[in-house]
Amino acid sequence: MKMQNLVQKIIDGNQLAGARLIRLLEEEDSAGIAMLKHLYPHTGQAFVIGVTGPPGSGKSTLVNCLIGEFRQRDMLVAVVAIDPSSPISGGALLGDRIRMRRHAKDDGVFIRSMATRGHLGGLSKTTRETVLVFDAMGYDVVIIETVGVGQDEVEIAQFAHTTAVVSLPGMGDDIQAMKAGLLEIGDLFIVNKADHPGADDVVEQLQAMLDLAKKSESDWRPPVIKTVAVNNGGIVELADTLWGHRRYLLDSGYFSEHNYKWEYHFFRQLVMEMVTDRIFDNAQVSPSFAKLLDDLKARKIDPISAAEKMLHTFLTQ
Amino acid sequence: MKMQNLVQKIIDGNQLAGARLIRLLEEEDSAGIAMLKHLYPHTGQAFVIGVTGPPGSGKSTLVNCLIGEFRQRDMLVAVVAIDPSSPISGGALLGDRIRMRRHAKDDGVFIRSMATRGHLGGLSKTTRETVLVFDAMGYDVVIIETVGVGQDEVEIAQFAHTTAVVSLPGMGDDIQAMKAGLLEIGDLFIVNKADHPGADDVVEQLQAMLDLAKKSESDWRPPVIKTVAVNNGGIVELADTLWGHRRYLLDSGYFSEHNYKWEYHFFRQLVMEMVTDRIFDNAQVSPSFAKLLDDLKARKIDPISAAEKMLHTFLTQ
Repeated sequence: MKMQNLVQKIIDGNQLAGARLIRLLEEEDSAGIAMLKHLYPHTGQAFVIGVTGPPGSGKSTLVNCLIGEFRQRDMLVAVVAIDPSSPISGGALLGDRIRMRRHAKDDGVFIRSMATRGHLGGLSKTTRETVLVFDAMGYDVVIIETVGVGQDEVEIAQFAHTTAVVSLPGMGDDIQAMKAGLLEIGDLFIVNKADHPGADDVVEQLQAMLDLAKKSESDWRPPVIKTVAVNNGGIVELADTLWGHRRYLLDSGYFSEHNYKWEYHFFRQLVMEMVTDRIFDNAQVSPSFAKLLDDLKARKIDPISAAEKMLHTFLTQ
Repeated sequence: MKMQNLVQKIIDGNQLAGARLIRLLEEEDSAGIAMLKHLYPHTGQAFVIGVTGPPGSGKSTLVNCLIGEFRQRDMLVAVVAIDPSSPISGGALLGDRIRMRRHAKDDGVFIRSMATRGHLGGLSKTTRETVLVFDAMGYDVVIIETVGVGQDEVEIAQFAHTTAVVSLPGMGDDIQAMKAGLLEIGDLFIVNKADHPGADDVVEQLQAMLDLAKKSESDWRPPVIKTVAVNNGGIVELADTLWGHRRYLLDSGYFSEHNYKWEYHFFRQLVMEMVTDRIFDNAQVSPSFAKLLDDLKARKIDPISAAEKMLHTFLTQ
C-alpha cells in the first residue's frame, strides 16, 4: 500500500490502515512519523479520557461499560489499553482485554493494546501518537486505560483532557498512599464496586481529601461517582459527568490549551531525538568519539565530562 | 558549605552531606551535576539490588529484613525507596516506610524516599544519580525498591545488577498477567508470605514459566525463594542467593558491563538534555522561533514539520 493511500484510508476510518500506522510508530519507523504530518490537519477534535487506578479496581469493566454507553449516544470510541507487560516480548493478554471483545465486531469501536516497553519516555510518545491516529480516524472519544500505581498515571494525566481515577472499597494502606498522589491528577473520581461494604467511607474520604486539596489552575471541583460496573450501575451518570467536564474544558479554553501543551511537548521531544540522533550519527564516524567511548568504558572520564566534551566537539553553534 | 567540602564529606560517608547533594540533583541543580564529576572516581563498587512487585506483596518488610541481614554481615546498606506518590506535592509517607525506621538510628544504613515526579525519564535519572552518590559514600549494597506494575520495573531492571521480583500466594489475574512481564527482568524470584496457602503453587507456576522462558544473554537460571518476611523466614538464604548472583556477575564480567551500560546511558541522556537546552535557549531570543510557536499554537504547522524546521534553523552542523 502506498503511503498516500494509507493516509487516505486512515482519514476514512479504516481500522486495518490505522493499526498498520500505529505499528510503524511503535517501531519508530520514520515513514510513520512522516504520515502523521498529513494526518495532523484532521486532528484536534477527539475527547481524550484517561482511566487509571490500582489492579483489581475493575477499570477494564468500567471502560467496557463506557464504550457501550458512548456507542448508544452514537459516538465512535477508541481505546488505548496499556499493558503492564513485557519489556521484551511485549503484550501479555489480560483476561479483561478478552472481555472487551464483546465490542470487537462493532466498527465504531477500535481497541488497541500497547505494551509498556523499555524505552524511556517511549510509552508516552507512542500513546500520544496513537491518540493522534485515532483522532484523525474520526473517533469522538479516545479512552486511555492504564494499570499501574506510579509514573504511568502521571503520564496519562498529561495526555488526557479528563482523568478519571478509580478506587474501590476496602483496600489497604497501599491504596491510601496512592490516593495522595492520584488526588492531584484526577478530574473525577470513581468508586467502583460501590455495592461492596465500605463504599460510602471511601466516598467520604475522597470528599474530605478534595476539600483539603485545591487545584491551582481551575475552578472545577472533581466529583466523586459511585459505580457498579459489573451490572452497568452508575454508568449513565459517569458518561454525563465526563461529558460535562469536556463542556467545561471547551468553554474555559482549557481544551485547546491541553492540545497545544501536548503538541509542544511532542515537538520538543522530536527536536531532542532528532538532534541527538544526528549528533551521535555524525560522531559515529569520528575517531575522537571512539576514543571518548573507550575512555568512558575504562573509567578514565566521567559521564558528565564526556557529555560536555561531546557538545564541545560535535556542536559548532 | 563550599562545594569542595561537600564533596569530601560525601566521600567520608556523611549522611547530611549526601542528602543535600541528592536534593540538589532532584532539583536538577547544575552545581549538583558538577559535584558528581568529583565523586565519580569513588564509584563503581556498590552492589545494586532492585526489589519490585505488586502492592501488598510485602516488599518493604523484605527490604527491612535484608537491611538487617546485610548489616549483620558488616556491610553498609543504602535504600532508594520510590514512592508511588504525588507528581506535584511529592512524597506521601507510606506506612511501610515508617516501619523501616527501626534502622533509622544505625549510621550504617541510609534510606532515601523518592517521589515519582512528572518529569519524563526523571525518575530513572535521579535514581541513577542517587545510586552514584550512595556508591561514592561507600555503601556496599544499594537496594532500589519500587511499588508499581509497569514502566517502573523496567527502569529498575536497567539500574540494578540484580533484580528480585516479589510475588505472593493467592492473587488474581492482574498478578498473573504482570508476571509475564516481570519474568524477563527477574534475576531471582521471591514468593513472600510463603506460610499462606497456595505458596507452593506459585513456586511451581514460576518454575514452569522459567522453564519456558530463556534469558538470551546469560546462563543464570533465576532461583525461586520462599520467604516469610514478617518473621524473617528465608532471609539468610535470600541474602546468600543475592550475593551468589553478584559473584556470578563479577566472574562473568557482567558486573562491569552493567556499570558501563548505565554510564553510557547517563552520558547520552546528558548530551540529549544539554544540547536541547542549548538549542531552545538560543532559539528563545529569535523572532523566527516565536513565529514557529505561534504557528504551532494556531495549528498552521504540525509538530513534526516544526521540529524539522527547528533543526534546520538552529543547528548549523
